[in-house]
Amino acid sequence: MKPVKIGLLGLGTVGTGVVRIIEGHQEDLQRQVGCPVLIERILVQHVDKERTIHIDSNKLTEDPWSVINSPEIDVIIEVMGGIGLAKEYILAALERGKHIVTANKDLMAQHGQEILQKASEKGCDVFYEASVAGGVPILRTLVEGFSSDRIYKMMGIVNGTTNYILTKMSQEGASYNDVLKEAKDLGYAESDPTSDVEGYDAAYKMTILATLGFHAKIKYEDVKVKGISKVSKEDIAYAKKLGYEMKLLGIAENQDGYVSISVEPTMVKQDHPLAAVNGVFNAIYVYGEAVGETMFYGRGAGEMPTATSVVADIVAVIKNLKLGVNGQRGSNSYLEKKIKTAEQIEAKYFVLLYVEDKAGVLARITQVFAQFEVSLESVIQQPNTINPKAELVIITHNASKANMEKVLEAFNKLDVVEEVQSVYRVEG
Amino acid sequence: MKPVKIGLLGLGTVGTGVVRIIEGHQEDLQRQVGCPVLIERILVQHVDKERTIHIDSNKLTEDPWSVINSPEIDVIIEVMGGIGLAKEYILAALERGKHIVTANKDLMAQHGQEILQKASEKGCDVFYEASVAGGVPILRTLVEGFSSDRIYKMMGIVNGTTNYILTKMSQEGASYNDVLKEAKDLGYAESDPTSDVEGYDAAYKMTILATLGFHAKIKYEDVKVKGISKVSKEDIAYAKKLGYEMKLLGIAENQDGYVSISVEPTMVKQDHPLAAVNGVFNAIYVYGEAVGETMFYGRGAGEMPTATSVVADIVAVIKNLKLGVNGQRGSNSYLEKKIKTAEQIEAKYFVLLYVEDKAGVLARITQVFAQFEVSLESVIQQPNTINPKAELVIITHNASKANMEKVLEAFNKLDVVEEVQSVYRVEG
Repeated sequence: MKPVKIGLLGLGTVGTGVVRIIEGHQEDLQRQVGCPVLIERILVQHVDKERTIHIDSNKLTEDPWSVINSPEIDVIIEVMGGIGLAKEYILAALERGKHIVTANKDLMAQHGQEILQKASEKGCDVFYEASVAGGVPILRTLVEGFSSDRIYKMMGIVNGTTNYILTKMSQEGASYNDVLKEAKDLGYAESDPTSDVEGYDAAYKMTILATLGFHAKIKYEDVKVKGISKVSKEDIAYAKKLGYEMKLLGIAENQDGYVSISVEPTMVKQDHPLAAVNGVFNAIYVYGEAVGETMFYGRGAGEMPTATSVVADIVAVIKNLKLGVNGQRGSNSYLEKKIKTAEQIEAKYFVLLYVEDKAGVLARITQVFAQFEVSLESVIQQPNTINPKAELVIITHNASKANMEKVLEAFNKLDVVEEVQSVYRVEG
Repeated sequence: MKPVKIGLLGLGTVGTGVVRIIEGHQEDLQRQVGCPVLIERILVQHVDKERTIHIDSNKLTEDPWSVINSPEIDVIIEVMGGIGLAKEYILAALERGKHIVTANKDLMAQHGQEILQKASEKGCDVFYEASVAGGVPILRTLVEGFSSDRIYKMMGIVNGTTNYILTKMSQEGASYNDVLKEAKDLGYAESDPTSDVEGYDAAYKMTILATLGFHAKIKYEDVKVKGISKVSKEDIAYAKKLGYEMKLLGIAENQDGYVSISVEPTMVKQDHPLAAVNGVFNAIYVYGEAVGETMFYGRGAGEMPTATSVVADIVAVIKNLKLGVNGQRGSNSYLEKKIKTAEQIEAKYFVLLYVEDKAGVLARITQVFAQFEVSLESVIQQPNTINPKAELVIITHNASKANMEKVLEAFNKLDVVEEVQSVYRVEG
């Protein structure tokens, strides 16, 4: 049988894994798609660089257009990352009728709609399973597995670096800075970790999940983002004491066409399955009207898990090629979404206050909550162990975000409140 | 657009859920498949029975052939259960070119190969996502999500009734019989619970999982099955004390073309994600060579979760119909499998012995393990709390099943061993 030929843009960690799987599992792949699957040409930055795998040097090129323009090549895998060039190359490849598999979350979160539109015009497939939660096939699960259901909420631990850091902080009582340094040394965090620790990476992934799960045109800018760099070991100690684990959760909700999406450090009840997702593992917890609660768990990054998803997409493209149905199995975003206002967003909150230690303080503080219609689930006033001020820990019932903001604003003006130390969303 | 018309065989719990989803989510379904999806005819046992949903009585029939023979109907959903008639109807419907969606695990585990063969001859789809783990889309994950990887092990909590019973026994220290009675009262166990508690239901599901996961022709008879009816509250107390939870685990392994599949009560380490799968929830833990460890969690049964999977399969059939590619997206079982012998099966074991309380006993017992090359991870001789004999708890390292059987046989003849009280596999 005539082989299907692939062009690979990028030969970093994921690209190397893709080569390993396509070569190592060639026999299995042939059995599934009915023909050989060959990597024809690979765009690299430096042809002469030493590599951990053996590759025929004739296949390597520093010229992207020798890949994109090659009439031999049916499918392009983009694993070079970044936005500008990757987008240019993908659009050019689609223009030439080539199918695309990409692991590029930044690109798909910010320019996915333009790329999918072009693919649809050209009758081409664009698959991007590897862009969210590496080895976990969550995108096809949303599109196909839950095609009959209405998904109304998704909670995701979708960034391995921050989950590694929070897990270590929780298990060892260590500080954020100490664990971040260790994570950098181990290669779990990049030298500039901003995109991970400030939540931007997770926000890209939540944009993609919400777009597919809610069939809606979600923009990256719709996501409210807060990272973990301000999470203290004291916050985590409090969380544990109250029966919670701190996780950087992406939360996407959809009610009656109103959507809210956020990424923020969240206290998750210890008996919730997400609380047990530790280290570099990822998990996505999905609520469907009919199916109820489900969870999908696995490695979110790394050479081989991510490459598994890339090559699974290649198998899907080739099956479609054989059946002559490329470009016709995508998901469509048919719903006009409106973004929830702060008045419409409801959640439970944890609040840690340092207050003056004198009579009547508790009454004045609870009065502020009452004034803005935030009712309280628990109030804990404890012997102070950490600093000389009195500590007050409050967990609210579900409250609107707008009202919570008013409460916090009022605290800033209230003389008995010395400091609003921490505020976190609570789930589970 | 011309509607796609569906014939429904069976209107029990799942059938009712299917009607609810197809009617309740009609607008969403139409957006996805591009045409109305209509339930044209429903086979029931008694047309006049009172039902929890309103259905046009003209659609109901007691004559299966008025559904199967109807030239109007494109797709048949079989949710009547059982083997004999369901198989007859499905084969007849395939003969007439109708596509099949079924939730029937017993049937697919025992006659799946015959049914899929017939479907392939007729160019028809047969999908059966709902047959394993109700709302968890694990079958399409194995076939599509992991198409690029080699799965070498799967562990599943795939029976909700037994997981409910074991969870209750663990959480409340209750006995098997007491919890079984309660489960029957609550409707979580059937009046004849044999198929669930003896592991047969889980064995059907493991047959289906192993067939798809390993691309191999697995037979139901290949599965070694042991149920939970002999699990005592003492066993569970021991498990917890040692840091384990007792779960009815289906375990399927594939090494170099040698396969072993079993269902048996297994002690799972408390920090393993499967240990936290409680109540009626199901989960499948999958090990892939490239992807590493992943887990898929959700409700295993119930009207709406199971119906979600049935209707997702309907969506897949209709998309294939529109694209003209029915019968061409199935998984093929291309590998000849050999079943592992007891010599080839390796596992860790927990053994609880009642022994004579005198000098030299421990030496004689450990000598037996050594004689058959079973090395020990831990030996705990404890102050006896449960009965007047001395208790000895042993956890082995990985050992061949054949050698473990020889050890147990030797204990039966050894005078210092009063009783081999319990033997369980250990995982995690």
